[in-house]
Amino acid sequence: MFVSRPAVHPVEAPPLTDAAENPPRVRMKEIQGMPGTPGGLALRLSQFVFAAAALGVMVSASDFASVTAFCYLVAATILQGLWSISLAFLDIYALLVKRCLRNPRALRLFTLGDGITATLTFAAACASSGITVLIGNDLNICSQNHCTSFETATAMAFISWFAVCPSFLMNFWSLACR
Amino acid sequence: MFVSRPAVHPVEAPPLTDAAENPPRVRMKEIQGMPGTPGGLALRLSQFVFAAAALGVMVSASDFASVTAFCYLVAATILQGLWSISLAFLDIYALLVKRCLRNPRALRLFTLGDGITATLTFAAACASSGITVLIGNDLNICSQNHCTSFETATAMAFISWFAVCPSFLMNFWSLACR
Repeated sequence: MFVSRPAVHPVEAPPLTDAAENPPRVRMKEIQGMPGTPGGLALRLSQFVFAAAALGVMVSASDFASVTAFCYLVAATILQGLWSISLAFLDIYALLVKRCLRNPRALRLFTLGDGITATLTFAAACASSGITVLIGNDLNICSQNHCTSFETATAMAFISWFAVCPSFLMNFWSLACR
Repeated sequence: MFVSRPAVHPVEAPPLTDAAENPPRVRMKEIQGMPGTPGGLALRLSQFVFAAAALGVMVSASDFASVTAFCYLVAATILQGLWSISLAFLDIYALLVKRCLRNPRALRLFTLGDGITATLTFAAACASSGITVLIGNDLNICSQNHCTSFETATAMAFISWFAVCPSFLMNFWSLACR
């Protein structure tokens, strides 16, 4: 009698599902570098700073427009810079009002944007580095070109890409985790 | 009598946890393109075929060795081809003996390898395309160079990278899912 009565109602279910849902939530909040965390803001700011540096250095070389790949680098770094500074402002807002930015729709948007900008920035940096190596090592015509500027801009674009990668991978990871 | 007797033992707990564990397993098995599936084998074979095509076309141009980026493309496609054909054989083995390749350690290895080879192949393709556009559009010296070969090899490398991307993203996704 005593044993059978409380076991009739299946009351174990709600606590079990709660316990299964809690660990990922806790884990997601802990990771620095995700949207809405100080680490994420630092990543966004470094992406923006290095993209802006790549843009500035490349534009400072007067003859960059004669090479398509260098024009593409300028376009890609502008896009990267705009994307990163927008998300940096969003991070600052989220930190100030203590709002969580990690809902599925926002995460999907961030992952998509990071993936596209990262691919474009990396492609531009690789194309520019191919031409920089061609000018500097294969043809040895650095005396007629602004090799140092081209190399510096390419390096900055690579560093900007390095800073986008963790953002993309973390967003993609937590999109899969939820 | 009928209701109380079977409910005396708290037997709801094991089925509940089983039910909570089953959906990811089923979902992982269903996705074509993952290691050990026919879709995955098709992806690996297309990666290998296009990497081998890029390698063959690039090597067929006699003067490719004078440009560092083209040499790098050759190296990257060799690595990509070796990696893809190894995993294709592994997929064939897994399909023949009906073994599941989706344990965490194997997934981690596949994700890492796919990420590295995809990055290298994409970098090589971008560097080559930068130089191809420089030769063809900016300098207009296609008459003195094997532009068609360079362009074809670059396109093949890009297609090979397109085939690696789904493998990498799916492996990374299921690594995060588990």
